[in-house]
This record gives sequence, C-alpha cells and structure tokens, in this order.
Amino acid sequence: MAKLGHNQYGKAENRVVRVFRDSDPHEIVDYNVSVALWGGQEAAHLEGDNSPTLPTDSQKNTVYSYAKEAGDAVRQPESFGIALARHFVADIEPVTHARVKFEMYPWTRGNNPHAFVRDGRFVRTATITYDGTTTWVVSGVKALSILKTSDSEYHSFLQDKYTTLKPTRDRVVATSLTAQWWHTSEDVDWGKSHETAVQAIIDTYGNHYSLAHQQTLFEVGAAVLNGQPQIAEFRITAPNLHHFDYDLARFGVENNNEVFHADDRPYGLQECTVQRDDAPDPGLAFDPGQGW
Amino acid sequence: MAKLGHNQYGKAENRVVRVFRDSDPHEIVDYNVSVALWGGQEAAHLEGDNSPTLPTDSQKNTVYSYAKEAGDAVRQPESFGIALARHFVADIEPVTHARVKFEMYPWTRGNNPHAFVRDGRFVRTATITYDGTTTWVVSGVKALSILKTSDSEYHSFLQDKYTTLKPTRDRVVATSLTAQWWHTSEDVDWGKSHETAVQAIIDTYGNHYSLAHQQTLFEVGAAVLNGQPQIAEFRITAPNLHHFDYDLARFGVENNNEVFHADDRPYGLQECTVQRDDAPDPGLAFDPGQGW
Amino acid sequence: MAKLGHNQYGKAENRVVRVFRDSDPHEIVDYNVSVALWGGQEAAHLEGDNSPTLPTDSQKNTVYSYAKEAGDAVRQPESFGIALARHFVADIEPVTHARVKFEMYPWTRGNNPHAFVRDGRFVRTATITYDGTTTWVVSGVKALSILKTSDSEYHSFLQDKYTTLKPTRDRVVATSLTAQWWHTSEDVDWGKSHETAVQAIIDTYGNHYSLAHQQTLFEVGAAVLNGQPQIAEFRITAPNLHHFDYDLARFGVENNNEVFHADDRPYGLQECTVQRDDAPDPGLAFDPGQGW
Amino acid sequence: MAKLGHNQYGKAENRVVRVFRDSDPHEIVDYNVSVALWGGQEAAHLEGDNSPTLPTDSQKNTVYSYAKEAGDAVRQPESFGIALARHFVADIEPVTHARVKFEMYPWTRGNNPHAFVRDGRFVRTATITYDGTTTWVVSGVKALSILKTSDSEYHSFLQDKYTTLKPTRDRVVATSLTAQWWHTSEDVDWGKSHETAVQAIIDTYGNHYSLAHQQTLFEVGAAVLNGQPQIAEFRITAPNLHHFDYDLARFGVENNNEVFHADDRPYGLQECTVQRDDAPDPGLAFDPGQGW
Repeated sequence: MAKLGHNQYGKAENRVVRVFRDSDPHEIVDYNVSVALWGGQEAAHLEGDNSPTLPTDSQKNTVYSYAKEAGDAVRQPESFGIALARHFVADIEPVTHARVKFEMYPWTRGNNPHAFVRDGRFVRTATITYDGTTTWVVSGVKALSILKTSDSEYHSFLQDKYTTLKPTRDRVVATSLTAQWWHTSEDVDWGKSHETAVQAIIDTYGNHYSLAHQQTLFEVGAAVLNGQPQIAEFRITAPNLHHFDYDLARFGVENNNEVFHADDRPYGLQECTVQRDDAPDPGLAFDPGQGW
Repeated sequence: MAKLGHNQYGKAENRVVRVFRDSDPHEIVDYNVSVALWGGQEAAHLEGDNSPTLPTDSQKNTVYSYAKEAGDAVRQPESFGIALARHFVADIEPVTHARVKFEMYPWTRGNNPHAFVRDGRFVRTATITYDGTTTWVVSGVKALSILKTSDSEYHSFLQDKYTTLKPTRDRVVATSLTAQWWHTSEDVDWGKSHETAVQAIIDTYGNHYSLAHQQTLFEVGAAVLNGQPQIAEFRITAPNLHHFDYDLARFGVENNNEVFHADDRPYGLQECTVQRDDAPDPGLAFDPGQGW
Repeated sequence: MAKLGHNQYGKAENRVVRVFRDSDPHEIVDYNVSVALWGGQEAAHLEGDNSPTLPTDSQKNTVYSYAKEAGDAVRQPESFGIALARHFVADIEPVTHARVKFEMYPWTRGNNPHAFVRDGRFVRTATITYDGTTTWVVSGVKALSILKTSDSEYHSFLQDKYTTLKPTRDRVVATSLTAQWWHTSEDVDWGKSHETAVQAIIDTYGNHYSLAHQQTLFEVGAAVLNGQPQIAEFRITAPNLHHFDYDLARFGVENNNEVFHADDRPYGLQECTVQRDDAPDPGLAFDPGQGW
Repeated sequence: MAKLGHNQYGKAENRVVRVFRDSDPHEIVDYNVSVALWGGQEAAHLEGDNSPTLPTDSQKNTVYSYAKEAGDAVRQPESFGIALARHFVADIEPVTHARVKFEMYPWTRGNNPHAFVRDGRFVRTATITYDGTTTWVVSGVKALSILKTSDSEYHSFLQDKYTTLKPTRDRVVATSLTAQWWHTSEDVDWGKSHETAVQAIIDTYGNHYSLAHQQTLFEVGAAVLNGQPQIAEFRITAPNLHHFDYDLARFGVENNNEVFHADDRPYGLQECTVQRDDAPDPGLAFDPGQGW
C-alpha cells in the first residue's frame, strides 16, 4: 500500500579545513560540506539491502581526500563542488544525482604569513547539483547584516480592520539576508564573481532610496544580474528586523528617531526571485531549504 | 531585463500564548506562527507602490486577534492555521495564496490547575496552505530524539576506494528527526491524530529490527500511513547521529559496545518520502524548508 | 612586570554515552563532561615547558576509560565526577585541584527494552571539585521551564521617574531556570536526591501564591533545603520571561488575560542564594559560571 | 532555618540601538545591556514586599532613556555603563550595588553615509560595577577567532597511562577566545583603548612562536598590560579548537599537514589570569560568568 517517493542520503556537515602551504604566505579555506546522493535506493528502503548504498562514511572520506586530490579546484567552493558531484555520479554506479552544499567561512590574514582572523561578516554558500548531464552551480551568501539609518519610507499601504501601523517617511531598516544566485556557465572566476555579487548586494541595499522593502530587494537582485551576464536567477530571503522608536516623551526626553529597541521576534519576512528575461528553467539548481 | 519571479511576504515568528481560563484546570497553547502571503505584489517590487500590500504588522495583529476570535479552533495548530489562511485569501483582495506555519511547544500540567512544565521531547509543527480553492494541511514533528542500543545492523554495503567502514551486526543508532505528513481530509481530530502519528514513529523506530537506516525510515512512514487513512504522504529527514566505540583496549580496559563518543559532525543524513499507492499529487502541501 | 594569576586547563565537553548491557532492559547515561585542572603550571605559561602538563587529550581518554572502569559510579554524575576528580589530583603529581562538570541529558524508555526517547524537560548538572582534602559536590538543573497562568501578583513596588509599569493582581509568570545545590555529605542516593529536588522546585514554583518573583524563588530554595538535610546551600537564576497581554480592544475583541505575546528580550532576571542557618562556607563548591 | 544569601535582580538583554544623526555621516552603536542591582531585598524575598524593589521594567526604561540623556557617554559601553551604574546606586535608595554588562556589536560603514554592514569579527564587552564608592570598569572581547597554520609546537608533556597523543613540532592551532581586562583608571579613551587591546591580542597570538597554548595566552595577556598602564589584570578563556590531520594515506594520497578535520567537541580549554606585579585586588571587577 505504501510506496517510496523521493529519497536521498549522504554525509552532512563535513568540516574540512585545507591549508595551502606552497603559497607564501599560506592560504586556507574553511568549509562545511554536505553531500546528498540519490538513485537506486529502493532495495535499501524496502528490504534493508545495502548493496546499492555507498556508506556515508565513504562519502566523508571522499570529501577529505578530494580536498587534496582536486588541487586548485579546492580553492573555491563552486569548483570543489563540481569535482565532487561529478565523481559521485560518474564513479558510483547506482547514483543518478548528487548535490553538494557548502558553507564557507571567510578568514582574513592577520599581521603575519601564518595567522588568520575569522571574518564574521557573512557565510559564503554554494550548491552544486549534477544529474549525469547537467551541472547546476548556485552561489550564495547568508547572515549578511545591513542596517540603514535613513532613505527608507513606508506608507500608503493596504488597510484592513487589523491595521494600526503608522505610515513613516523615515525609518531605520535592518536585515540579515540570505541569497542564492544561479550561474548558467562554468567559465567563471568564482572568487571574483562572489566578491562582485556581495558588493552589489551591499551597495544596492545601502544606496537604494526605498519606498518598500520589496522594492529594495528587487533592485538588489537586478544589480546582481546586471553585473554578471552568466547569472540567470537570484533568490533572496530578507527579514525586516524591526527597530522600534522607544517612547521617551514619558520621561520628558526627546527621541528624534535616535533611540531604538531592536526587537527579535516577530519580524517581517520578504522573499523574492529576480530572473533574467530570457532565463531558462532553473530545474534542480536551487537548494530548496530556502524557506519557500 | 530583470523580471520578478515567485515572491512572498509575511510576519514570521509570532509568539502567541493562549490561556483557556474557562476550563478547570486551565489549558494553554504555545505557538510560534509564521505567515507568508503572495499575490499581486508586482507594483510593490517594481515601483515601491504599497497599495496592494497588507503590512506585516497587520498580519501580526490578525494572528493575535484570531487567537481569541477563532475560538476552539485555536486549540490545535491545524484548525487555527486553516482559519488564518482562509481569512487572508478571502478577505484581503490581492492575496491569492497564504501559507501559515506553526511550531507548537507542548507543556504538561504540573501538580496544580494553574502550573505547567515545558515538555521538551519534541516540537509539534503544522503547515497550512490555501490558494482560494484547495486547503493543504500538513502536520509534523521536529527535534524528536530516539536512541536504540541494539537491533541495528549495517553491512554488505557498496565498496569503493574510499570505503574503510567496518561492517557491524550490532550498533547504537540515534537520531533527532523531522517529519511532515499530509492529510487529504479535514475531518480529523487533530490532537488525537498527532498523538497517534508520533506514537507510531516512536514505536516503529524503536521496535524495527534494522538492516539499514533507510529501511527503518520507510517502515516508520508506512506505519504512520497505516494508522490513519487520511494521511497520503509522509516525509522524513533523519540524521544518523554517530556514536563511536571508544578504543579502551589501549588502556587495558574492555569495551564491549558499552562506551561511546557521541559525535556532533559530520553525521549521516537519510531523507525519504513514503506515499499511499493512490496518493494524489501533493501540490503546495509541504513546507519546502525541509532540506530537499 | 606581568605575573601569572589563577589558571586552569582541561578538556571540555567530552560527549560520553555509556550503555549498561548487563541490565535487562538496557540502561544508558548520556553525559557532557568538562574537566579543569590546576596546579604547577607556571613553567608552561612562562617558558612553554610542558613537563608539568597532562595533555587534555589524556584527560579525554581518562574520562572515556573511567566510563567503564568506574563501574556503577558511572550511573550518576555526582559519583562519576568524584571518581574522576580524585583520580586527577591523587595520581597526576602537579595537579592540586580538579573540577569536573557534567551536563546529563535524561532519556526515557520507549516501548521496548532497547529504545529510548530523549526527555527534554531539563538538563541535569553536577559540579565536583577536589583539592586533595575536601570534595565539594554540587547538583543542579538547567533549562527547566515552568509557566503559571494564575496565583501571581505584582504591585506596591518602588516608583521612580522611569516607572510606567501598571500593578497587577493576576499575571502569567514563566521562567526557564538554572539552579545549583551543594551537598555537605556524600552518603546520598544521587538519583533519588536529584529527583526529589527537581520535584520540590516544580511543586513549590507551581503552588506558591506569589507576591514577588523573588519570594517564589526563596520559597523554592527553602523547599529544596527542607527536603534534604545534607543540602546546605541553593542558588537559583530565574529569568522572568514576560508574557504581555495583547491589546485586542483596538479590533473590538475582548482579551480577558487570555492572549499573550511571549517576548524574548529583555527579560527580568532574579538570582538568589538560600542557605541553611548553620551552613558552612561553600568554598570552591559552586561553578562560578552562574551569572554572579 | 533557611536564610537569604547573596541576591540580585535586574533587566537583562536590553537591545538598544542609538543613532547619532547630528554626525555626518551618521554613527550608530548597537548594544545588548544587562542590569543587575542588589541591596535591601530581604523583604521582597521573605515577605513578598516589593516596596524596596525597582521594577525591572523601570530599569529597562532607564537604559533606553539614558541612551539619549547620557549624551556622548553613550558612544562607548564603558562610559555609558558608568553613567547607568552610578545612577542606580545614587538615585534608588535601597540599591547598594549595580553591575551593568554590555555586549556591543560592531558595524562598519558601507558605501554611503547612512548604511552599515555588521562586522562579525568579534563582540566587544564591558562590565561596570559600582558599590557607592568604587567603580570597577572591565573591557573585553568574545568570539574572536584566530587560526595559525604554523609556528606552534606541542611535545615533552607529562605522560600517564592514558596518554596516547603524539608530540608535534608543527601544528595548526585555532581558538575562539573570550577575554576581560580591568582598568584602574577612568581617564581613558575607551574606543582607542579597546582597539589597542584587540590588536595586541591578534598580533601576539599570531606572531608568538608557541611551545604551549598556555605560553601564548600568557604572552597575549602581558602584551595587553604592556600597551596600557591603566590595565591591571587580564583574564582569558581560550578553547584549543582541534584540527585533526585526516589520514589520506589509506587512499594513496599524501597529506603533508594540509587537510584537516575541524572538530567541534571536545576541545582543550586553557584559562589564565595575567596581573601587573603591583596590581591591587580586583574586588568585584570581573564578571564571574567567565568559566572559573
């Protein structure tokens, strides 16, 4: 009566640090790598027959070994992920699809060739999916926090019986955003591309004179697409982290948009997709763990 | 050149506690409610025109007000969510779709009619989606941790050049699982249904003699479907939280499968879908933030 | 010019799970064990001379090996900790003091002899400190959440120019508390003692008709001392997790102390010590990481 | 039989953001402020008499109002904390002691005068304690992560029967450190002082050729004291976040100290105090929630 639908398995959160000692100064990459494989797992689910299953322990060994074997490809999550995803599908017979997801933690060099300080401004992400024919490469960022003290309005909105919000012509807006963008080419300098995209996000969010958070997010996406022709689609999830004016008039103190309570929850949550006009269907490109 | 794709907006993580004082003893529900709406938001994204946008602040007010207005429906997240989702689509003109997601924190009664102790065994979840015609109701659970000290084997698996894992006939298995299941009817006693499903998960995971974690998860799903005819599809994400035998022989101490290191990362991650043979397409039912 | 003051070192967060397979049904304990040692570490700090230093790796090995070697003492964190702390001071020459801290995660048996479900109601804690002469044993609990829907007043408080709080004769009170209590004897059934203390906390917090959160906390401490003559001192840290009445009158809806917003931050924080009249000085007993 | 020992109460985690709009470009500070008061609370604990108790709600109002009233003092946590602590003791009669603790989240300016990006390299901390006579000012840092790819040895350590660690002449060392330092003067440029201390920590940790993690930490403390005559005592808690060489020889791949598994738990934990030779007793200066 019960049948098996979509299934996948893998080793999640392999914490690989690679040191490049042949560089002077040394270089490092710091990754959290999650592998998911699918294909041919009916026997494992229905009969407990593991013969078509590559142990997740072997997948872990592969990730760490490829951190050396894949050479310079390891320096960027996108190229490291392409090498891993293709290996799993090409070399492990029952595997039809592989998805490799990365969190990358940036470090900045300290004051000597061997010391690094973790740069916590954001986490870089990448999701690489391969089905034996197509390779989808998605880059991204998460936990990038931006705050604006001005240039943001919010008014003229729909009113219902539960609407008590006062319109405003000048508010503080803050977010801690997550975004993913899909490349339709692999002929990309991944490091430079990521830097360009993040800078476009920061600049556009900061510079946009905003009438709606939605409008700012669309502009952010358009700027990322504008800057790089191989990016076909951009998805963003951006909480509106409320900063409420604290009422100081009760104590005889003037608060001219200066003192705020930064509230944790609830928060507004705007999410949108921006696509190139002629963008193809993204297929399996995006990591669905995005919220919608 | 850039066009708008899927977009949604809402107020996330409204922390509503409702006390039912007309009961003796008192009853409470403790919810974290997230609302997402979509429909008619082009002007907001492209022109900063908020006239089609219901402020997320109004959505928050609605959630708290419905926590009283919706009466007995508030006692279960599924019925509370149905009331909210239908309101947003029916009463707010540009809204075509609403999705309301719940985390529910169970509390058990203490030793008097007015005191409760939080029961941290799991978080109950629910996702209700409405498009003006169809209402999809999905129940779920997360952070449910189960550990088995026996009745689990793992061997006869595929071998590649990276395989170093030793086969085992008796291992400790542990998980902290997330699951969602979709009801094709609303004629359901939601509280009883949830209790039945969770008990089926715990019993089946605990009692199944396992040859593969995948096999156990399929059996868990089949048991949930078996117990309730209106459940058409079940999805589960279950980390295999590794407990490694600690090598005590080095110190002249025997370790007969008794002393383990509970490792944090990496972990195996098995995910699968179990469907009733004749299950219809789930459409928008499932919260995609599930990992695949 | 710079001199060395207090210093300590150790291996923190050893995640030991021990299965007792000679019981039928099986039993398990699930611990997070942190070791800190001090004594004789001047050369290590001033000259990088490691000869007086027991590697933290060896301390880790010791914890896992004692999880078997210490036999039945392993079943309770207090007795396991006494064995470990005394070993480090007695057997490792430069060590003058050892402190061993435990988090213990309770599991309840499922429906068969080999399956367990994690009981998330609280984390049990223990801190054992030994200086070669005295052994201090402290038991505790953290993340124990209690909520009362009635029997709590708050009024007649001090007023200053910043006071805007309205007095109340009936409020919801909730906490997620941390407590530690010090035993002046080791002739204790640790499991039963812990259960008795936690029950006293839950019962007293729940049953006390409260005029002040401080008053409730003192009563809780007094009840714990009252129930067990060997407990000399009790310390508690209890946030007052605010549940604010949501103003529904704006929507024409009556809210008779029924619908609340559970706020995250800020929160009230009450902390107090309750001592037996004739309590000796606690010396090194308490884990100072308590907040004051 | 039960008597009251040390007790304190306050409003914790007030999330205050202050915008200085009279600057061009704008400036902001982002604080998490926790207040604890003690003095005269016997009646509250023993009788539920709140007449000597300043509601924590009033304390919250005070923090937000002082974020404007205290003027330029608000720009640095140390001066803001001094103003708050002295107010509570001087102006609220039963209060004998006040401790005000800060987390400060640094933001860096984006590409325009009104936009900021959160700089996640560390959290700045401050603890100010006042007893009516003495003001103790402690600055600090937490979650500052540093990694060294070379210049670190560990060998010649004490051996016991549980010692299996191999000595090494070249290892990766990483930490995420917490430190506090006590100023014996208030005639300090707090912003510059903090920057100088953090730079001394980063530079010394990075440049020190290390024979022991303990030795590095002492050098770090000595460097902080050396750079600023008013700092009398420095306390540091520094996990040794293990990076284990991954054994790739099993797959025929050479790993010359290049590919590491960054393990989460357990971790080494070194903690030490470095004092100026003639340092006075620190009294109540340090926040005890430091781990020892």
